[in-house]
Amino acid sequence: MGEANGAPKERGPSAVGGDQAAVRRGNLARVLGEIRQPGTHSRAAVAARTGLTKATVSSLVTELIERRLVRESGRQQAGNVGRPGRLLELDGGSVAALGLEVNANYLAVRGVDLAERVLVERRVAFDGAATDASEPVGELARLAEDAIAQVRGAGALLAGVGVAVPGLVDVPTGTVRYAPNLLWQDVPIAEWLRRRLDLGADVTVAVDNEANLAAVAEFGSEANTASNLVYLTGETGVGAGLISDGRLLRGSDGFSGEIGHIPVDPSGARCGCGQVGCLETRIGLVAAVRTAAPDLAGTALDPEELAQALLERAEAGEPRALAGLDEIGRWLGVGISIAVNLLNPEKVVLGGYFATVSPYVVPTAMRELRSRAVAGQAAICPITASAFGFTAAARGGTGVIAEEVFRDPWRAPLGAEVSPARSEDTA
Amino acid sequence: MGEANGAPKERGPSAVGGDQAAVRRGNLARVLGEIRQPGTHSRAAVAARTGLTKATVSSLVTELIERRLVRESGRQQAGNVGRPGRLLELDGGSVAALGLEVNANYLAVRGVDLAERVLVERRVAFDGAATDASEPVGELARLAEDAIAQVRGAGALLAGVGVAVPGLVDVPTGTVRYAPNLLWQDVPIAEWLRRRLDLGADVTVAVDNEANLAAVAEFGSEANTASNLVYLTGETGVGAGLISDGRLLRGSDGFSGEIGHIPVDPSGARCGCGQVGCLETRIGLVAAVRTAAPDLAGTALDPEELAQALLERAEAGEPRALAGLDEIGRWLGVGISIAVNLLNPEKVVLGGYFATVSPYVVPTAMRELRSRAVAGQAAICPITASAFGFTAAARGGTGVIAEEVFRDPWRAPLGAEVSPARSEDTA
Repeated sequence: MGEANGAPKERGPSAVGGDQAAVRRGNLARVLGEIRQPGTHSRAAVAARTGLTKATVSSLVTELIERRLVRESGRQQAGNVGRPGRLLELDGGSVAALGLEVNANYLAVRGVDLAERVLVERRVAFDGAATDASEPVGELARLAEDAIAQVRGAGALLAGVGVAVPGLVDVPTGTVRYAPNLLWQDVPIAEWLRRRLDLGADVTVAVDNEANLAAVAEFGSEANTASNLVYLTGETGVGAGLISDGRLLRGSDGFSGEIGHIPVDPSGARCGCGQVGCLETRIGLVAAVRTAAPDLAGTALDPEELAQALLERAEAGEPRALAGLDEIGRWLGVGISIAVNLLNPEKVVLGGYFATVSPYVVPTAMRELRSRAVAGQAAICPITASAFGFTAAARGGTGVIAEEVFRDPWRAPLGAEVSPARSEDTA
Repeated sequence: MGEANGAPKERGPSAVGGDQAAVRRGNLARVLGEIRQPGTHSRAAVAARTGLTKATVSSLVTELIERRLVRESGRQQAGNVGRPGRLLELDGGSVAALGLEVNANYLAVRGVDLAERVLVERRVAFDGAATDASEPVGELARLAEDAIAQVRGAGALLAGVGVAVPGLVDVPTGTVRYAPNLLWQDVPIAEWLRRRLDLGADVTVAVDNEANLAAVAEFGSEANTASNLVYLTGETGVGAGLISDGRLLRGSDGFSGEIGHIPVDPSGARCGCGQVGCLETRIGLVAAVRTAAPDLAGTALDPEELAQALLERAEAGEPRALAGLDEIGRWLGVGISIAVNLLNPEKVVLGGYFATVSPYVVPTAMRELRSRAVAGQAAICPITASAFGFTAAARGGTGVIAEEVFRDPWRAPLGAEVSPARSEDTA
């Protein structure tokens, strides 16, 4: 094992035998993982903490520097025994991740580098249900193309694209099986994007449900301390992203979290999915507008503008808006209590328009939850508003790509030309 | 590290320094884990597979033999280079685990050794709701006492007791927070049992929800291949045990799985939990008897006898029974579709009376699930009957104790006197 780890200058799966390559690949991630931790890091300290030899760590660090994932920070370590070593820190400035989101009413793109600098961020209104799937995917590809150009202009190479879709996704193939609010069925979006964007085989395209990706973004946010949380999207559709013991619950086929289609109102309206009285027919954005601001139904406002309008009317004390949001809060509480009784999360996080109008829906939802939580006071958890608003899913898209690189640094794109400005950092 | 692993004759946390002890303890589990795998095992083969030195493995095997978890099987390994070694196999015959179950209508006990021999199994009818908690716990302790005597008579020492309760359990303290069908609130059952049974500190007492333990038993059964499953108890109460990616989902406080108290019928009956129209009021055993065999309501039959009576009437073609079970099947499908939409399991396993009458409820439940599963055909999973019937929870109780010993062999009780019959096995 020591030889494989320590082998200098050998890179790529073809350079080292199968098992040794796998070991080196794993150790590369361990070393990068150490350097991601808060605090200062020398090669010697990383060796001590990982249990690898100093020679092995040196070789691995050389590779991480070549891959532009790590850089020497230029400061000297003082007061130690032996020759003072240079300190190491996360670089990541030349590796970028793109997050895309298709929604019923908008398309969004967000590009960041692995040092978490935002390189590009954009959202455009779009009527997803008005056309067949090829048009929104074409539009999304154009957005992505522009974003990739901006990313490259900033001196970064693309590691991958994470795509959020409001529907059921077959994650291994990147195919949207069914997205009721887009009227999509069996859309191989990963393949389409890969072809239109002419992406190389080394660029990951990861497609997932928007609620899953938003939950991942929320879970990974600095403010979060919960390892069990339920994230609820609040857009045209309502879905849940479930994090349990720090892991995303995808279920057997990746189709978990369809809380919006749990029937809660037998005397209710017909849902886009074909059933009657789904939770979504009571608390989706369309229902909220119909209930709290019916004059805005059918206007060209995008979800964020609608959410803002609802908030402003409630703040102005408009009775219809207040009564409508109270009604939304009650049904939201019904839905949340189902998730709480089944999953006992540490907190529920509201996204989308729920987050915008949270002061007007959370108190009623909490009251409903209190009366419905079987475990009583002990299991009642706070209902909080996401700080990420309508950007959560695209953030999650960049997050999964970044995590993939950190988990397996060989996925970082090779050959990034060091721009003059950046090359000084490691000189 | 090598020294700590290889140190011969050193045992127990006090014999080795903290870190070294932890490493040895971990390696003990790794070696035991190898020997648990199917196939033949020599010390040399275990060394090769674990990456530990032969000296280390020899020392660890000596300790596992002393703890009666492993024995030499007496056969010689042929055809290998070097001196032929003796083969090793799981012993476990002197270490026992007890599973206890408190239910609304019965108490049950099951004792097995770690070789999975059943040493004792008993169930007695009991009206849990008729008295305060101390009486059923007293009765349970008497059952356990007899069982422990039988276990000891069979030459085994007790590693621990796993207790299944139909309610919300604070797992770390072994306290039942709330069990609606027993009318229990804040019952420190682990502490009570430990005191009444005079158990030493080295004997584990693990309390958990009955559905959780039944799900663990189902997941660990030889026939099971699913790593995502939902287990539904079918007794007076209805609860779910959730296994996701091979892990039990406990939620933040251990209160997950309360599917029985999801409101499904706003015009329904009041539930023991205080709400109206809970799933349990539609598919609990009381509802089943009321709907399918009302003349049996209030009789002294225990749940298994009631389930059998329902089955016999349905098999005889009695219209009331058939119509009633069909109605149960429909509501069961409503409940299952909630779990499927939220969790997307690979299969749903029915326990308790659901399993007994499964031919008469599953077809209707499947029809309901098909019409309600958002993901359509792709996410519809089979609904199967557990083979463990009413014994699943007690089986899960012994299972968690056994797993604890396998995960950390230092938890196996020391000082088991080898009975004459058993000592021949390792001679």
